[in-house]
Amino acid sequence: MVNHPAVTPLQRFLFNQLRRFIGQAPIRLRLGTGTSALSDGTGSECVVIYESSALAGMMLDPEIGFGDAYMSGRVEIEGDLVHALEVLFRAMQSSSNRRWFDRLVSNSLQHIQANTLDGSASNIHHHYDLDTDFYKLWLDPQLVYTCAYFATPSATLEEAQIAKLDYVCRKLQLQPGERVVDAGCGWGALAIHMAKHYGATVQAYNISHEQIEYARARAQKDGLAGRVEFIEEDYRNISGDFDVFVSIGMLEHVGREHYHELEEAIFRAIGNSGRGLIHFIGRNRPAHFSTWIRKRIFPGAYVPVLREAVEILEKHGYAVLDVENLRQHYALTLEHWLTRYERSADRVIELFGPEFFRAWKLYLAGSVASFRIGQLQLFQVAFVGSACQRIPWTRAHLYAEDSRVEEESRWSQVAF
Amino acid sequence: MVNHPAVTPLQRFLFNQLRRFIGQAPIRLRLGTGTSALSDGTGSECVVIYESSALAGMMLDPEIGFGDAYMSGRVEIEGDLVHALEVLFRAMQSSSNRRWFDRLVSNSLQHIQANTLDGSASNIHHHYDLDTDFYKLWLDPQLVYTCAYFATPSATLEEAQIAKLDYVCRKLQLQPGERVVDAGCGWGALAIHMAKHYGATVQAYNISHEQIEYARARAQKDGLAGRVEFIEEDYRNISGDFDVFVSIGMLEHVGREHYHELEEAIFRAIGNSGRGLIHFIGRNRPAHFSTWIRKRIFPGAYVPVLREAVEILEKHGYAVLDVENLRQHYALTLEHWLTRYERSADRVIELFGPEFFRAWKLYLAGSVASFRIGQLQLFQVAFVGSACQRIPWTRAHLYAEDSRVEEESRWSQVAF
Repeated sequence: MVNHPAVTPLQRFLFNQLRRFIGQAPIRLRLGTGTSALSDGTGSECVVIYESSALAGMMLDPEIGFGDAYMSGRVEIEGDLVHALEVLFRAMQSSSNRRWFDRLVSNSLQHIQANTLDGSASNIHHHYDLDTDFYKLWLDPQLVYTCAYFATPSATLEEAQIAKLDYVCRKLQLQPGERVVDAGCGWGALAIHMAKHYGATVQAYNISHEQIEYARARAQKDGLAGRVEFIEEDYRNISGDFDVFVSIGMLEHVGREHYHELEEAIFRAIGNSGRGLIHFIGRNRPAHFSTWIRKRIFPGAYVPVLREAVEILEKHGYAVLDVENLRQHYALTLEHWLTRYERSADRVIELFGPEFFRAWKLYLAGSVASFRIGQLQLFQVAFVGSACQRIPWTRAHLYAEDSRVEEESRWSQVAF
Repeated sequence: MVNHPAVTPLQRFLFNQLRRFIGQAPIRLRLGTGTSALSDGTGSECVVIYESSALAGMMLDPEIGFGDAYMSGRVEIEGDLVHALEVLFRAMQSSSNRRWFDRLVSNSLQHIQANTLDGSASNIHHHYDLDTDFYKLWLDPQLVYTCAYFATPSATLEEAQIAKLDYVCRKLQLQPGERVVDAGCGWGALAIHMAKHYGATVQAYNISHEQIEYARARAQKDGLAGRVEFIEEDYRNISGDFDVFVSIGMLEHVGREHYHELEEAIFRAIGNSGRGLIHFIGRNRPAHFSTWIRKRIFPGAYVPVLREAVEILEKHGYAVLDVENLRQHYALTLEHWLTRYERSADRVIELFGPEFFRAWKLYLAGSVASFRIGQLQLFQVAFVGSACQRIPWTRAHLYAEDSRVEEESRWSQVAF
């Protein structure tokens, strides 16, 4: 440890505490306040702390402290941001640090907005009602803001998002003329894909005004306004009878204490005879979502374990047919987003200022890191009602070059 | 209703009660005691009750009463047995009948043997230590006594069991030289398949003495005794370090209250870096397994919902990669077994007598019905430890004609 005379005892104490919390993780730390620098550790990346206030903030609440200090530029990462976050997240996962970490996380929970009807509206507005032009800077052309499906890792983001939309339709065994309800439809890409390529009639729900307006204009332009209806309403207010329930990337915003409302919404929509698919960020062990992410990026978010998600389907006796974990695909999707986002730095800073730019950069890079190290998972769960007769015989049709495989092998031969 | 003068008021009361419990289900009932016959209902099948004692038994405990009366020939089904059971099971599932049914089921629970080390040994002995020659009469040549995988419904049982063994190996991404522990190995077909076709080294556990002896002789004959070790021990006593944990059809025998012991056995075997697959009969809503099946066929059995099964993987942070529901394949597997079993009627009766023959016929036919109507499901759950780096990029390799697909698309490209 290099020791400069101008470092105060308090600075040294806080710096040593931080090092202790991070443990033996291969990352350098530097307190870079002018010439009075403290530094420690080895590794390709360095966390540079420019102000003692940031150091104190990180000790009081590591997530919020680090996130806010990074956002404001009081902390910088030298080297590969994603890799540095992987190293830091792994350190936080280790058992002795986690106790400290969990305590602080639970202390921050009271600030979180509940997902009541009003609460959800406010939470969703916070994130999704940002100017669509902002998302156009770094998403694919169809504005699909969920995990893509890369048939091979070298596929482009645009190809992989189209492949994902189609993969979901195949998993749902979507047929011409079927009625679909899409809960949490984003900018409408899936609903439009289903109507255009599968001949389905879709009612798509979303409480983001900005997204609904965009989706309606797109359906109008594509001549699909008669077959895709975009409804600015909460999933709890879905009404009507449907063959298929689909929800891509909404469960994270529902909140654990509202799962029973989703359970009922699914049952009202498709009853015992329908089919469904939910696609969501999950994890392997129960935990709260990053407090910083919930404060700055996704208020109200909760990421369930698979057990909690499949429990939603239990009361009404839905049969889970297929669960797939696509976490590697989400890491790659997020890498594409981060690369595009960084290329658009000037424009983002012009629109929202430098703190916003850094906050979202941290969110995207942190998400890449979380999916890479398996702190987060991405699950697609396909299910059918207890009276549903449309159950594929195998999953081979999902991977057939020509999706029209022999009917004998595709559909159930069992008499019902 | 045809009314004969010799029917007693008690007979009529019990008959009407039975009809009421079955409700509007399309099945005929007949009390066939000589000329004093009562009959009611419409449908292709008829439940014929030859003795009033059977009628009383069914009212006191519908499952045990019906099962035991069928077993002893005091009740017969005219027409298609499987279809009749489908109709009856559906009637039992309906809400008003279920309350009555559940009450009686819970009353019978105290008779069930717990799955302690000794209890499991006794429970498993009851079923699996029957003469192997008996199972040879109706299983496939490799004696695989779990759900097969039919690439198409027209595949033979023998093909479908080989396909299942191979499908499990593909889902596990098994590589030459890897060390596998097989918990509940039956007559050893999977362990031998893994050693012979994938070059793995397998330790296979089973507490059925009869099965272990058979499996050892088979490995010896195949020249694989050096690479497959069959160990007559409980899964709780698994020791050693392995790359892969696999368990096909054992979870049903573990018992809910012992899942934490399985959880620890998996973790001791493969730690954070290994991979695993569990294959088990499940259901959509929590319920006890048929009391009659537990009394006569599978003492100690418990069939979990998916939520309960994936919870086993949660404490140690295993990532669920893939869940597949193969219930249609189990219905078809059981149809093959039932057909072969009925063809072997004379031999079974010679070995074990007519009551045994009828009991197992009811068990097999009832199982076909349960999987057909979705009262039972069959899940395969593939998982990896939190530090496992061998995660397939997609599931396409499971369905490739040639399993050697391009490495780029098969394995993770994400740096760990």
